[in-house]
Amino acid sequence: MAKEKKVEQITDMEVDFAQWFTDVCTKAELVDYSGVKGLFILRPYGYAIWENIQNILDKKFKELGHENVSMPMLIPESLLQKEKDHVEGFAPECAWVTMGGSEPLQEKLCIRPTSETLFCDHWSHVVHSWRDLPMKYNQWCSVLRWEKTTRPFLRGREFLWQEGHTLHATAQEAVEETLQMLEVYADLCENYLAMPVIRGNKTDKEKFAGAENTYTIECMMHDHKALQSGTSHYFGDGFARAFGITFSDKENKLSYPHQTSWGLSTRIIGGIIMTHGDNSGLVLPPAIAPIQVIVLPIAMHKPGVADKAQELVSRLKVAGLRVKGDFSDNSPGWKYAQYEMKGVPLRVEIGPRDMENGQCVAVLRTSGEKITVPLDELETRIPELLETVQSQMFDKAKSNLDSHTFVAHSLEEAKTLQEENGGFIKTMWCGDLACEMAMKEQAGMSSRCIPYAQEHLDDCCAVCGKPADKMIIWGVAY
Amino acid sequence: MAKEKKVEQITDMEVDFAQWFTDVCTKAELVDYSGVKGLFILRPYGYAIWENIQNILDKKFKELGHENVSMPMLIPESLLQKEKDHVEGFAPECAWVTMGGSEPLQEKLCIRPTSETLFCDHWSHVVHSWRDLPMKYNQWCSVLRWEKTTRPFLRGREFLWQEGHTLHATAQEAVEETLQMLEVYADLCENYLAMPVIRGNKTDKEKFAGAENTYTIECMMHDHKALQSGTSHYFGDGFARAFGITFSDKENKLSYPHQTSWGLSTRIIGGIIMTHGDNSGLVLPPAIAPIQVIVLPIAMHKPGVADKAQELVSRLKVAGLRVKGDFSDNSPGWKYAQYEMKGVPLRVEIGPRDMENGQCVAVLRTSGEKITVPLDELETRIPELLETVQSQMFDKAKSNLDSHTFVAHSLEEAKTLQEENGGFIKTMWCGDLACEMAMKEQAGMSSRCIPYAQEHLDDCCAVCGKPADKMIIWGVAY
Repeated sequence: MAKEKKVEQITDMEVDFAQWFTDVCTKAELVDYSGVKGLFILRPYGYAIWENIQNILDKKFKELGHENVSMPMLIPESLLQKEKDHVEGFAPECAWVTMGGSEPLQEKLCIRPTSETLFCDHWSHVVHSWRDLPMKYNQWCSVLRWEKTTRPFLRGREFLWQEGHTLHATAQEAVEETLQMLEVYADLCENYLAMPVIRGNKTDKEKFAGAENTYTIECMMHDHKALQSGTSHYFGDGFARAFGITFSDKENKLSYPHQTSWGLSTRIIGGIIMTHGDNSGLVLPPAIAPIQVIVLPIAMHKPGVADKAQELVSRLKVAGLRVKGDFSDNSPGWKYAQYEMKGVPLRVEIGPRDMENGQCVAVLRTSGEKITVPLDELETRIPELLETVQSQMFDKAKSNLDSHTFVAHSLEEAKTLQEENGGFIKTMWCGDLACEMAMKEQAGMSSRCIPYAQEHLDDCCAVCGKPADKMIIWGVAY
Repeated sequence: MAKEKKVEQITDMEVDFAQWFTDVCTKAELVDYSGVKGLFILRPYGYAIWENIQNILDKKFKELGHENVSMPMLIPESLLQKEKDHVEGFAPECAWVTMGGSEPLQEKLCIRPTSETLFCDHWSHVVHSWRDLPMKYNQWCSVLRWEKTTRPFLRGREFLWQEGHTLHATAQEAVEETLQMLEVYADLCENYLAMPVIRGNKTDKEKFAGAENTYTIECMMHDHKALQSGTSHYFGDGFARAFGITFSDKENKLSYPHQTSWGLSTRIIGGIIMTHGDNSGLVLPPAIAPIQVIVLPIAMHKPGVADKAQELVSRLKVAGLRVKGDFSDNSPGWKYAQYEMKGVPLRVEIGPRDMENGQCVAVLRTSGEKITVPLDELETRIPELLETVQSQMFDKAKSNLDSHTFVAHSLEEAKTLQEENGGFIKTMWCGDLACEMAMKEQAGMSSRCIPYAQEHLDDCCAVCGKPADKMIIWGVAY
């Protein structure tokens, strides 16, 4: 019952990057649209990417002493209102439950947009002594933010994420936690997702509602726009005061603890797509690819070919790889296109002639290079080639970032550089909100971060010319 | 800075079983109450139990070819209404979102009480050919049901669960899937949670809203009440027709696929507590205990004791056990009580005299038996003792089930048996709803299931005396 399935076509990224992105999301079978705007279905292939990211992070969180918990999904309006900056930031985009069964509720409940208030309420019950600290919690869940414009992964009204929440006896310990968790995200991005990052902290304008300081990792997408890829917040004792969380310290004095939170969401999958994808579809970093190797029998009807291909699948599985064989009756052309669309890092082909020569052919999703691999070296060479793909991906993304990061000395220059090249523009900044607003209004760029890696470009602010000792990065962000 | 922490007290189970249950939930630090009735916080120790159950099931689901996905948490009212039995069953207990930000919504959205409608809507987009079948999906999430009375684990307005949803080309394949997944749940209960089960199917009255047949596993709690512990539903093609899901079969004819769903929730943790707990608190089956072994140094200030205890912790960790040492300055008495409360299956004590004798002492949480273990046999003996605890727990629960399962030949006799002993009452049943209602109204018992393991007790229905060929089990259920 042979048949020729149609090869799916996607829009060229040079023609329409946004449409290319949407095409990849649907044609690679990552998502489907639900009946509610901004609520996306993560299909098995999309969810498997998230599961692989979860496994990496969850293991790391636990190694660092964090424990998983589950908080309710609903927050009473009065609880959300306890911390005033927080409610101002989140109330406008809350979805509200007003009826339970057929009864109107006495107090409306919002579906969590984030869970600081819930963690604080819980801690106010259970934290009493310095012996109870630190509390280092994490939860995997989905949250809701009623956004006006929505796109798969990048901006959903509902999205999956993890949110870490910790409480510490001292400010110093809380700040260390905040920075440590940003490093965990940076490690995930650079060493697993092949996405180079800029580490830094947000301006007051861009920080999380209620935070004293927000640290961020910023990535550059293929179209030279920025994606905020993970954030870590230091709250000081502001929430603790608002929620009445106190503890007896070692001197038996009542103190307020210091708090952090940090989150990374399925948005990062949008980042993977836009960093690595090409006009054939998705390109997945081997470290998180649900299928790392697709084995395709060539001339499958020839004696022994299917068996040999199956043997390769089994051997690679035993070697610890995520591998799949496609023994369907679809044409080789369709299969090539299909697994390219799905971004499988390595395709392994084996046909009658290969069998005669005791070899198979590995094709790299990145460069398209074809490499002959002797069958008796399969278990060593294939993992090596996956590492090659992983580094090629990082290097390409790094080169994109480096070649599109510019220095400007005035707003005008920054604006021209952005218009002509896109990318990240570094300038000095005096720290004034007015200058940040001017850059937004006149050059269309938001501040991405004040990077850890500071450089002295000038003595004065690129916008107002006043003395400035901070270097800041501007960009157009998703 | 030594101190004597107060040993937590709980209500005796013989005095007030319900209060005992609540005490265990809070004192063993499984849950905390949130500001919204019926929404519970799963604290680290409670969530870790759920994670261990998740790991067992998730692995099994994947081995059987299921894939995880993520569906939206909100269902438009019109979508919920598509299958009429389903909406009748669930609409009365839905929580409704009516506002997004400050805008009233055009159509109200319910927070998923279960996701059949969402899966069906998705399948109606993506299923076209017999080649697309079966679809074997699962999701881990929380659902909301606006219950009037609520209790931790047993009846929450929000609870965590997994819901499997599958779609098949033939009725036979779907029925096989339904039965297979019930077996997965039975295996979890019996071989990991040490909870013996009765497998059977539900009556029409008790089946899932919209299902053709619901299969269940029923467990008996320590107080002889029943807990429905996992269910698996066969839907026929009812939902497929309601949602317009069709596929071209191998003869190119348009057909409706057949559907199943199956779920197991954090309710099972309530079952573990009520099956195995005692007046000292929780008793956890080693297979899912977050801490399988607690190592306590005795006379910790004596030279070498703490180091030796730490060495045991490390050795047991290397041996693959979930083990913890308590080196805090709390008194031994407090530590004994604390880890008994938390249901840790095995306590390992080591003091100066044990060190001299090259041994440690293992204390079983179940029997309290103290067993001397030579240190050079640690890695073999401790896992053996954990297996002993696991079988002791199953045997005790099985004996409770067997000794409290009775045969009755009339409603009156069933009623008396229930009043005098509690437990499961087996009778013949004609299949009429009227008799099921009579048993409920007059004897306070609901039908638990029509067990797979049928016995011929009589020729006629215990309620109405009409000919009957089905044996049914009645009980008082949580």
